Amino acid sequence: MNGLSIIGAGYSLPSTRTFRAVEAATGTSLEPDFHTALDADVDRACRLAAEAFETFRDSVGAARGALLRGIAAGLERDADAIVARAMAETALPEARLRGELARTTNQLRLFASVAEEGSWVDARIEHADPQRTPPKPDLRSMLRPLGPVAVFGASNFPLAFSVAGGDTASALASGCPVVVKAHPAHPGTSALVGRVVQRVVAETGLTEGVFSLLFDAGIDVGLALVRHPAIAAVGFTGSRRGGLALVVEASRRPVPIPVYAEMGSVNPVFVLPGALAARGAEIAGAVAGSVTLGVGQFCTNPGLVFVTPGADVFLNTLADALGGTVPASMLTSAICDAYGTGVARLTATPGVTRLVGESLALGQGTPALFVTDAATFRAHPHLADEVFGPTTLVVRCATVEEMRDLAGRMEGQLTATLHADAQDQAEAARLAALLESRAGRLLFGGVPTGVEVGHAIVHGGPFPATSDGRSTSVGTRAILRWVRPVCWQDAPAALLPAALRDDNTLGLRRSGDGGWESGA
Amino acid sequence: MNGLSIIGAGYSLPSTRTFRAVEAATGTSLEPDFHTALDADVDRACRLAAEAFETFRDSVGAARGALLRGIAAGLERDADAIVARAMAETALPEARLRGELARTTNQLRLFASVAEEGSWVDARIEHADPQRTPPKPDLRSMLRPLGPVAVFGASNFPLAFSVAGGDTASALASGCPVVVKAHPAHPGTSALVGRVVQRVVAETGLTEGVFSLLFDAGIDVGLALVRHPAIAAVGFTGSRRGGLALVVEASRRPVPIPVYAEMGSVNPVFVLPGALAARGAEIAGAVAGSVTLGVGQFCTNPGLVFVTPGADVFLNTLADALGGTVPASMLTSAICDAYGTGVARLTATPGVTRLVGESLALGQGTPALFVTDAATFRAHPHLADEVFGPTTLVVRCATVEEMRDLAGRMEGQLTATLHADAQDQAEAARLAALLESRAGRLLFGGVPTGVEVGHAIVHGGPFPATSDGRSTSVGTRAILRWVRPVCWQDAPAALLPAALRDDNTLGLRRSGDGGWESGA
Repeated sequence: MNGLSIIGAGYSLPSTRTFRAVEAATGTSLEPDFHTALDADVDRACRLAAEAFETFRDSVGAARGALLRGIAAGLERDADAIVARAMAETALPEARLRGELARTTNQLRLFASVAEEGSWVDARIEHADPQRTPPKPDLRSMLRPLGPVAVFGASNFPLAFSVAGGDTASALASGCPVVVKAHPAHPGTSALVGRVVQRVVAETGLTEGVFSLLFDAGIDVGLALVRHPAIAAVGFTGSRRGGLALVVEASRRPVPIPVYAEMGSVNPVFVLPGALAARGAEIAGAVAGSVTLGVGQFCTNPGLVFVTPGADVFLNTLADALGGTVPASMLTSAICDAYGTGVARLTATPGVTRLVGESLALGQGTPALFVTDAATFRAHPHLADEVFGPTTLVVRCATVEEMRDLAGRMEGQLTATLHADAQDQAEAARLAALLESRAGRLLFGGVPTGVEVGHAIVHGGPFPATSDGRSTSVGTRAILRWVRPVCWQDAPAALLPAALRDDNTLGLRRSGDGGWESGA
Repeated sequence: MNGLSIIGAGYSLPSTRTFRAVEAATGTSLEPDFHTALDADVDRACRLAAEAFETFRDSVGAARGALLRGIAAGLERDADAIVARAMAETALPEARLRGELARTTNQLRLFASVAEEGSWVDARIEHADPQRTPPKPDLRSMLRPLGPVAVFGASNFPLAFSVAGGDTASALASGCPVVVKAHPAHPGTSALVGRVVQRVVAETGLTEGVFSLLFDAGIDVGLALVRHPAIAAVGFTGSRRGGLALVVEASRRPVPIPVYAEMGSVNPVFVLPGALAARGAEIAGAVAGSVTLGVGQFCTNPGLVFVTPGADVFLNTLADALGGTVPASMLTSAICDAYGTGVARLTATPGVTRLVGESLALGQGTPALFVTDAATFRAHPHLADEVFGPTTLVVRCATVEEMRDLAGRMEGQLTATLHADAQDQAEAARLAALLESRAGRLLFGGVPTGVEVGHAIVHGGPFPATSDGRSTSVGTRAILRWVRPVCWQDAPAALLPAALRDDNTLGLRRSGDGGWESGA
């Protein structure tokens, strides 16, 4: 680990500005020094990416598949070192990080299979009809990659939403080179993963600019990246403040570019009367597990629970479970401080009662539980804000109508969860219809944490859960963020992309003359 | 024609502020007075739209199909009146407007067929696997409509890009209600078409708020519309200034919304040496026809032509054809004035020679032709700007390398056209690869005007041709602008949309457990 930014096949020069990773559990600084990338480094990474795009966009699916599978295999090979470093930098336990590594490699292989199969390009062919008045031209279109993508890793998923995480995997699968800005909370983990990607790019014979990785403890490198003319789109997972800053920056460019920022949410849970009576304790146990999972440091932790009268068993069980959860180190001291501030704000809000979390352990994520009523919730809009950490606020509603009214006031969410029994079905249907326009994923039972990576998942949602609710950052649909349709009119076969040629040698499932071609 | 805004099944109240349409050919004002919509009218239209969305989003494809087909039939029934009024308001000839009406009704029926068939929702199902560790949930997702859409009609297509044009057809097909801001250059045409839509909404038994139509000669109503919290997306076709103003407005909302603004382009044409030698005169004739089509008032008129040495025949033929084209009235006096200004600016640019258009007829769109060399073109960036009207600038390049260099400097375009013969193929391939990232549609031969409405067309392109290059405003892909993916996890069948139920009673083509279900 040399502490230098990865610029294609090479490295940045040393800088006079350096920073170190911090061992999350102890606050001790970790070797080595990481060198802040200079403007020239950012520029070189972006220029190499633009150069690489000229060939990478036309690479066959098998080549992109080999790249992604190679990265997955490389991560598995270096797993021990990566997990050890990630444990030190994040204080996340080994089992969690090994699980996250498996999720990351599964994700890379899933996108490899999408790239290899190839039909995601939505190829459409309409043949000419010279007899028609006016003559009908030959028209063929498909989705094509946008260009180099800037990826900002998240602090809370040092593998699955970081250097070789979902944004990178989906962008590479689409044919877009990637320039990653490493999250300063886990630079060592980023460097280890980045080296794997750099090595595999070389091994698979791709142009070096397909991947670069930049270090900076501050915001300058990230802003320079978003401003660079070669960058065509941005993927981000993190805070609302950070995400919105990138949105503003991208919109101010001479040529604005799309920003896909996943900015978290409170993930409301609605427990309807039948479910509350029949399974209150069981649901409380599941909610407690979801609230404290990963020390509450997930975008999908449930931060709000709405209940109807008769919630005492639910609340007592939830309080016992949260009170019995051992405090643990959080990802960074800044996150821990922000959590403390959020808990203090809830504590200080009149009408809000703290049931768990009297004495927050210093420097730890101590679970907390708050309860309030609907009137207080309505009167204090900040009660609907995310507090990143292991806490949740239970809102006692007098009736299901009141619960629905509060649901109607929610801003955009990544998820919304309904617990309903047979007798709750009519109300569940009404509530689900209302929540559909406020969330990316609606759960019926279960808990929102544990996002399944597949074809059908949506990890997105209306603003402000994300900056662009028309997309998802998890699952195979994520590839559609990095593309645009391009149409060829009356092109000779030799000038058409293979996906659009009549012979369909790629064996794609595609639409022909409005009908459907089944592929291989 | 009562001159009042259409608000659902009713009308606005009369306003003290009124305006009139102007007969484009004479400048005479036309009956009746149109009443500027008040803030309360905008609010009522948007609230009705939000209310209608609650049911319209769940309407079956057949219902949306019936609406769109009903509008098409209604336009045909009222064609004589609509065309007559449009002729007066736009000075476009009858044949053109009858053609545009046919295009509009074809477009409505095409989107009807998409809504009826239904597979466009990209339904994806992944069944649960309770045996897996951890247990795999049941996940199902599909594209769902965003909500009420604000549509801004274009001045230059009073039917196909206006009240019942492509934006409205695609939004209604997706399940989004529409509030149209009528273009003040053709309020009478808008009113006649709006009445048809209003009547068909009632006849098909849909909620009234599915459609409203607002009048204003200025910008206040449009801004109020984009600011209204019920509006979820915006479709616009027009000037860059107008489009960018809406983009800024939409981004300043508490909840920002997507704006799809098609803002025109110069649609460069590249004539390679082989094609120039073999077919120079023929290509010149086609280009002349495309430049002057509709008095040059198309988004896709070619405003720049790049040629290599040996272009004399090409230029002479182009000059003869443009010089021999009879000047005609333009859509509005403002457009005619702007055209005159644009022509004067080209005339005044040192190094640019005017070959046609010495004396612009007063108040008419007189064809003009300019020629310059590559050095002058590089030195004066404004030469790459769109001049809306029947003019084009021919840029003489010394070599194909120089042509490619200039192509690389182009900003985002709706189209780019290549004329190449057998001997030009290598250069055509290079140029096409370069132009792919700068245009939505690449033509090989032919002319860019005459946009085919179908499944494969792309009428879009990188900024600043559009505000969002990831989309098209023409063709069936346009429906994808108004939707977002939503995921249901472990939902009981009764709470799932029909498109996501196992029985697939809608007979959709959809993805199941990563594989493919063929549908009906």
